[in-house]
Amino acid sequence: MRKLLVIGIGTGNPEHMTVQAINALNRADIVLVPRKGAAKEDLAELRRDICRRYLSNPETRLVEFDLPVRDEKEPSYEKRVADWHSAIAATYRDLILEHTGEAGTVAFLVWGDPSLYDSTLRILDRLGDTAGFPFEREVIPGITSIQALTASHGIALNTVGNPVHVTTGRRLKDGFPENADSAVVVLDGDMAFRTLDQDKFSIFWGAYLGSQDEIIIAGALSEVGDRIVETREDARLRKGWIMDTYLLRRNA
Amino acid sequence: MRKLLVIGIGTGNPEHMTVQAINALNRADIVLVPRKGAAKEDLAELRRDICRRYLSNPETRLVEFDLPVRDEKEPSYEKRVADWHSAIAATYRDLILEHTGEAGTVAFLVWGDPSLYDSTLRILDRLGDTAGFPFEREVIPGITSIQALTASHGIALNTVGNPVHVTTGRRLKDGFPENADSAVVVLDGDMAFRTLDQDKFSIFWGAYLGSQDEIIIAGALSEVGDRIVETREDARLRKGWIMDTYLLRRNA
Repeated sequence: MRKLLVIGIGTGNPEHMTVQAINALNRADIVLVPRKGAAKEDLAELRRDICRRYLSNPETRLVEFDLPVRDEKEPSYEKRVADWHSAIAATYRDLILEHTGEAGTVAFLVWGDPSLYDSTLRILDRLGDTAGFPFEREVIPGITSIQALTASHGIALNTVGNPVHVTTGRRLKDGFPENADSAVVVLDGDMAFRTLDQDKFSIFWGAYLGSQDEIIIAGALSEVGDRIVETREDARLRKGWIMDTYLLRRNA
Repeated sequence: MRKLLVIGIGTGNPEHMTVQAINALNRADIVLVPRKGAAKEDLAELRRDICRRYLSNPETRLVEFDLPVRDEKEPSYEKRVADWHSAIAATYRDLILEHTGEAGTVAFLVWGDPSLYDSTLRILDRLGDTAGFPFEREVIPGITSIQALTASHGIALNTVGNPVHVTTGRRLKDGFPENADSAVVVLDGDMAFRTLDQDKFSIFWGAYLGSQDEIIIAGALSEVGDRIVETREDARLRKGWIMDTYLLRRNA
């Protein structure tokens, strides 16, 4: 049976790789490296760098491929994502059949950790339904952007004994969660923190966490919010893409 | 100035160590290893194992010490914890003064990640107020029990685009969070999932995650809840301690 290794690689610092991840990488016959687009090319380069540093198995081959793109003309969000995931699953199937035998091992290098707002596991569920061949899969945990954020700020995620809410920019627009004093916001292209009462929260923000381009800003939202907005926009224009996340904490 | 390295070591699998954590370990003059108590002794052994595997700097020394214990006779919870943290900070101060010079580097090996329900950063804040010497600190992120849990179950933490609430057993007794369909529960000595409507949730439970003793159970809460309770109690009696966590997901 084929084996699919879903390996968390951390957030941009090649030294986020765990020993378990390095060992998994070296068990692979092929490592799939998607390319295309500015962010994708930087992420492809991170994956290549990781393989250059840590791959010692001479039999392992890198297989680069173009990831299908979403059909932005499809009006339904659900169908747009479902179609896109199906197209990626079909690409995976073709690559796996082309490059591995029936007992082959395939590595997927997932930015951050495979559990957190990443589609790889869902796409592999889809592949399971359509591949036409059996496979096992194994998940290797990785450093998430949340750990990278708190480490760079040198802070704890939670206050003593209290909950933490992990949410998206879209959901934050409905208001800060009532049942937590700390909230991590991911997938926020729209800086939803601007919709909050600026006097009630502190923010710990970071972009390109772990990488050489890392930027972090922290302070009272009323004092640093505008600077985050400007810094984020400048960085996004300069690099062509941005990946950022932040922790909001309700003032005591 | 002295440097304190707060290093996340993952949850019990020595291969959870990142390359960044290994490099940090090797920058240390001393590595502090607390001992005492059943769980503490197993954790001390994990720390020694990590040093045996990854420490290549011949100058680095392990310093074992007895961690102060909480005064359970103190009636106020806040004061009990504050006094305990002060006592630990004083122990750290004495060890650091005894074993390092003014430019010395000290490594603290933190189970999981320093940001998540761990007191080390707070104790070092206290040390900063009382040490009598200046220091810098640096945090190195580690694999948390949450990533270890989802990896072992091979699942995503969140459902598509939805929030995740991270909470404690004590808080879960107030009810499942209204604003999330997924909740991670930590620090639950009392199996608070038993207080929920058993027909409305699925559970993904794990104990000793990442270690050789790892146990995982998943399923409808109504079907596996009792088995988790029994398994947890058996394991706790057998080993003398237990560390477990779980993800609850509201049924669609």
